[in-house]
Amino acid sequence: MALIVQKYGGSSVADPEKIKNVAQRVIKTKQAGNDVVVVVSAMGKTTDKLIELAKQITPLPSDREMDRLLATGEHQSIALLSMAIHHFNEKAISLSGAQIGLITDTAHTKAKIKEIKGIELIKGYCKEGNIVVVAGFQGVTETQAVATLGRGGSDSTAVALAAVLKADECEIYSDVDGIYSADPRVVPKARKWNYIGYDEMLSMAKLGSKVLYLRSVALAKRYNVAIHSRSTFTQGEGTRVMAENRIKEEGKMEEALVRGVTHDRNVAKMTIVGIPDRPGIAARVFETVAEKNVNLNLVIQSISGSKEVTDISFTFPRTDLPKIVDPMEKLVKELGGQGLIYDSDYAAVSVVGLGIVDTPGVSARMFRCLANLGVNIAMIGTSDLTITCIIKENEVEKTARALHSEFGLDSD
Amino acid sequence: MALIVQKYGGSSVADPEKIKNVAQRVIKTKQAGNDVVVVVSAMGKTTDKLIELAKQITPLPSDREMDRLLATGEHQSIALLSMAIHHFNEKAISLSGAQIGLITDTAHTKAKIKEIKGIELIKGYCKEGNIVVVAGFQGVTETQAVATLGRGGSDSTAVALAAVLKADECEIYSDVDGIYSADPRVVPKARKWNYIGYDEMLSMAKLGSKVLYLRSVALAKRYNVAIHSRSTFTQGEGTRVMAENRIKEEGKMEEALVRGVTHDRNVAKMTIVGIPDRPGIAARVFETVAEKNVNLNLVIQSISGSKEVTDISFTFPRTDLPKIVDPMEKLVKELGGQGLIYDSDYAAVSVVGLGIVDTPGVSARMFRCLANLGVNIAMIGTSDLTITCIIKENEVEKTARALHSEFGLDSD
Repeated sequence: MALIVQKYGGSSVADPEKIKNVAQRVIKTKQAGNDVVVVVSAMGKTTDKLIELAKQITPLPSDREMDRLLATGEHQSIALLSMAIHHFNEKAISLSGAQIGLITDTAHTKAKIKEIKGIELIKGYCKEGNIVVVAGFQGVTETQAVATLGRGGSDSTAVALAAVLKADECEIYSDVDGIYSADPRVVPKARKWNYIGYDEMLSMAKLGSKVLYLRSVALAKRYNVAIHSRSTFTQGEGTRVMAENRIKEEGKMEEALVRGVTHDRNVAKMTIVGIPDRPGIAARVFETVAEKNVNLNLVIQSISGSKEVTDISFTFPRTDLPKIVDPMEKLVKELGGQGLIYDSDYAAVSVVGLGIVDTPGVSARMFRCLANLGVNIAMIGTSDLTITCIIKENEVEKTARALHSEFGLDSD
Repeated sequence: MALIVQKYGGSSVADPEKIKNVAQRVIKTKQAGNDVVVVVSAMGKTTDKLIELAKQITPLPSDREMDRLLATGEHQSIALLSMAIHHFNEKAISLSGAQIGLITDTAHTKAKIKEIKGIELIKGYCKEGNIVVVAGFQGVTETQAVATLGRGGSDSTAVALAAVLKADECEIYSDVDGIYSADPRVVPKARKWNYIGYDEMLSMAKLGSKVLYLRSVALAKRYNVAIHSRSTFTQGEGTRVMAENRIKEEGKMEEALVRGVTHDRNVAKMTIVGIPDRPGIAARVFETVAEKNVNLNLVIQSISGSKEVTDISFTFPRTDLPKIVDPMEKLVKELGGQGLIYDSDYAAVSVVGLGIVDTPGVSARMFRCLANLGVNIAMIGTSDLTITCIIKENEVEKTARALHSEFGLDSD
């Protein structure tokens, strides 16, 4: 008998009919002889509606109270899903984040999981024949205040539960049926993988793939939890995300130099021109950005004409541009820089694959492909697994398709 | 410095504007130098909407899951009210039923309060200058399952909190501004009382007054909690409900033989005709009714023509009629009774007053008043404080007005 953790997102439980559909899927897994722990998000647009309600009260709601408000969405969906499972004559019990003892830090609205204390409780309910239905996205702080885990929080709940329960698999259901070599809406010939390694998946999530959240994949890697990304609305197998060596051992490796072509349209680029080239300057720049809670992607420092000054360029989510323009202009003035240039119509296109590090010439092939398309490269970044080019946003789709062909990924 | 517990019902927090209005009232009490603990119900029709949602999943939702679903309504309103208090620059913190350690029995959907463990926690938050905002209507069982307290549950929460916190007063806000000598919608000359005793209030609640719930008044009497029934939407004083001897000691007694004329339209009457008159028969009848969870009001057993048989008549809420017709017909057949008569167009009209027990002739005055109106009395019931007549429903309004005049209650 296996223990399976399943996670269903908001679109999978958006209305009573869909909740019943999920109940039947869950029951099928149970009746196949498994113990099942189900993690659910709030129904459809519930979270958005609650945020709207709070904004009608005050423009700046307290994080603690916001978390209590938002957590009600999952309380409702776990109660309703349990009722639906009962309706089909299986035993089920709902448990909130507090009840499973999911303890978080105190960073309300984006808390991190510290511990799950209720392992024996959950196992006990399973042993009594229950399907255990757990509220995703939420926990409590040490002082028992409700705290939510931020975007993708329910995925983190599911992976963390799978880890502490030593589940055989963590199935994450969404409206797509697995991990593709590229976004099929942009690259129609994208192929679905049966298996993908943690590191490739992490790179793809970081560089634009939206099927799984970066944080939950990182958690899965850390605790060696096998994720199975599947569709709520179809029956087939999805994509299994696990350690590369396990995929190899099981003989399931699908050989390919490049495993994914990802793109990200949410890119802005900023350049500080002619800033004094002395120790501590870069630190000041990046501290200023970090204070505004903005994550940098690519960073390049280049020597400009003079020996005393340098240029620093970096990219970051375009949606964060308004947060950093003013502080950066102030800083450039303070440090005696010559100017600040920023532009928001960029995009990133990346190739991802474990083989890239061992294969000479991958970058050259990528740059040649872009050159043939007439696409200008604004910045380049590389890691062991990835090569990223920053290009103009309006060229990103054709570039993704061309790279997908170039690296032999097109399906028949 | 006093400690005031305030309770606001669903209509008082039905939308963001009303929530802000409540926030300002609460703050006013706080700024007058009091510690304030606020109990709130779910917003407006939230509970009804959640019940509707559950019914779309399954016709018979489990009580445990229903309680979790319904409890989210108060989680939302405490979060929103706390945000609104913050908006007006006062400190506030929301606490759920679980967080204040409100422990209930396991009778889900109509649980009874056993204990409130979080007294020191609440006092601590007050001491730090917080307005403490508590979820009404809910608690947790010993095994930490969410349990709701049934109709009027938030009032019970408020009274129980006032008891354990030894609050100076428990203010219960609704859309009426106090306790009247009759329902002003039916008796326009009804007068508002400044003070009313627990026993009179209990009788009035039992016999049709809907301003305070019977259960919360009984709880207030047991723990000697002074209730102040007030309106959310006006500023004046309401009615204080407290022990009769305290009202006397404070010289606040408003002398009146009859303090209330109440009526209840939700009355059905059933008569079992010609049932054998031997021990245990009445018990069988009333056990059958009790099994269906129906509360009897008046009961009369009369000797019919023969010495071997008797008739039993009783009244009960009309809405419960469908539950007991079939079991009673079966029982009458089984016991060899001659027949079962039932009729649902009755109403009860009652006079209530502590003085009734010591004043001869009150019943006679009441019956004469009805006779003068040409109203036929189907059944009569009395207690120390009350006289109740069962009459036809279509005669109840004029009867209430006439009795209100007869006992000198009409306001100028």
